[in-house]
Amino acid sequence: MSKILVFGHQNPDTDAIASSYAYAYLARQAHGLDTEAVILGQPNEETRFVLDYFGVETPREIQSLAQEGVERVILTDHNEFQQSAEGIRDVEVFGVVDHHRVANFETANPLFMRLEPVGSASSIVYRMFKENQVQVPKELAGLMLSGLISDTLLLKSPTTHVTDVPLAAELAELAGVDLEAYGLEMLKAGTNLSSKTAAELIDIDAKSFELGGNTVRVAQVNTVDIAEILERQAEIEEAMQAAMAEAGYSDFVLMITDIVNSNSEILTLGTNPDKVEAAFGFTLENHHAFLPGAVSRKKQVVPQLTAAFAN
Amino acid sequence: MSKILVFGHQNPDTDAIASSYAYAYLARQAHGLDTEAVILGQPNEETRFVLDYFGVETPREIQSLAQEGVERVILTDHNEFQQSAEGIRDVEVFGVVDHHRVANFETANPLFMRLEPVGSASSIVYRMFKENQVQVPKELAGLMLSGLISDTLLLKSPTTHVTDVPLAAELAELAGVDLEAYGLEMLKAGTNLSSKTAAELIDIDAKSFELGGNTVRVAQVNTVDIAEILERQAEIEEAMQAAMAEAGYSDFVLMITDIVNSNSEILTLGTNPDKVEAAFGFTLENHHAFLPGAVSRKKQVVPQLTAAFAN
Repeated sequence: MSKILVFGHQNPDTDAIASSYAYAYLARQAHGLDTEAVILGQPNEETRFVLDYFGVETPREIQSLAQEGVERVILTDHNEFQQSAEGIRDVEVFGVVDHHRVANFETANPLFMRLEPVGSASSIVYRMFKENQVQVPKELAGLMLSGLISDTLLLKSPTTHVTDVPLAAELAELAGVDLEAYGLEMLKAGTNLSSKTAAELIDIDAKSFELGGNTVRVAQVNTVDIAEILERQAEIEEAMQAAMAEAGYSDFVLMITDIVNSNSEILTLGTNPDKVEAAFGFTLENHHAFLPGAVSRKKQVVPQLTAAFAN
Repeated sequence: MSKILVFGHQNPDTDAIASSYAYAYLARQAHGLDTEAVILGQPNEETRFVLDYFGVETPREIQSLAQEGVERVILTDHNEFQQSAEGIRDVEVFGVVDHHRVANFETANPLFMRLEPVGSASSIVYRMFKENQVQVPKELAGLMLSGLISDTLLLKSPTTHVTDVPLAAELAELAGVDLEAYGLEMLKAGTNLSSKTAAELIDIDAKSFELGGNTVRVAQVNTVDIAEILERQAEIEEAMQAAMAEAGYSDFVLMITDIVNSNSEILTLGTNPDKVEAAFGFTLENHHAFLPGAVSRKKQVVPQLTAAFAN
């Protein structure tokens, strides 16, 4: 059996790295597969905090699958090809573990695919540890817990599934941390944006979506103070324009999410501001508008954009 | 919670009906969902034999999802929308249990999706009964066993997974039948083709695939004597031409499968016979050619066609 690379999406967030790292371990232990977890980009500040905290070495970053010479891959925390590795269409997707919608995904052969509408890909991987009765090492419990906390903003996002709550408690115990204290410390580690250039800021957690013939970039930054980010609006808009010009995005939608009060400000540029307004039922002023209660790109932003761009 | 319809693909085969019927039961028992198993076409002779044998009433046939007024569905034994119910793009796909490749499938929201590259969708459903510790009623064990036997030609097809073998033995015991004797009797019940018109014959187990911009129809009939079917070639070709003209298929590929010796004859009409020849490395004579050892559309025909039509 040839080596199988396991990875999360581009611009990896904590759940992308945690779920791929943990699943690669599980596949070796439970199924005897020759797996290696790799990453499609460097970890963000939050994930770096997590890797440091649990003493896990940063996985190797790869540039393209052709360069790696692998024939089979396992995707975690994503399935859409435009969010995946360069060359993804030329290899066999052996398996997928994910908690997103399915789109722009196609295979020539049957595969293992395990999708659940839960808070994080890490939640599913942990469930598979239990199903396969594989013991969870402390540092992997810490990683998976962090993936779940990151994606659900400490179980506050509407993407949190009822089964995620007891699961977080189990993982916290296995990882030897206090859920609330550790969770807040970890989330705050990711909100230190002052050291970031605008170009870095809009790329921390950004994904592209094919919506009604448009390539729409949807990025999210977490903060404890939305106003602080809006002070940099001119600089951020310049970076968004440059990204659109370079990559051919029709629109750029940035969610600036207040992790303490669970709201977001939407800042958008591009050719379809009317569709963005229709998606959220608000009126943009100076390219931005407030979206109360919105913290989840997946549940509170992408489906609404998908519907609006379909018209 | 509104009602959720559960169904297999159009032109249902035994696995499509068995897996949807059994999964609808499991979802009621294990998850408290209000599910109803329905079918997208009348059962073939093999499936009728199975339903009679285990005393299961034929599920209700539906014409379109709009007519049913449902908002959520669960698909078994398929995911490609062109093989699914009319109106599938206008409802929420709540879940999928399948053992095919993924193609022409997209959702707006995260969902439950459980795909494994095993012999039948029924195999996966049975595994889920065990995971959820739900007791399998005798008639459901019989149905799932029949789905597995049908799709793997009694565990002889290369699509048979190593885990299917012990699973078939378990199901046979639960169903109270002898695996070999029941399996052969059931398969033979499906090969009585003399009473079928040519139009019926090419529609018993037929699926459409979008391949490189072409809609290709790939049908399969099981027989104990390939020559007997080829005696009707003129009449069958006429029916294939009519189906292509009516539905706009670019090509029609019919697998005539010898279930005793595990071979197939391929009979094809359409605009791309060169691609069909390239797919299988054979030369058509009078529109047909022999494909030794081929019994599986999914593993030995569709991937090869996919590759050839991509060029």
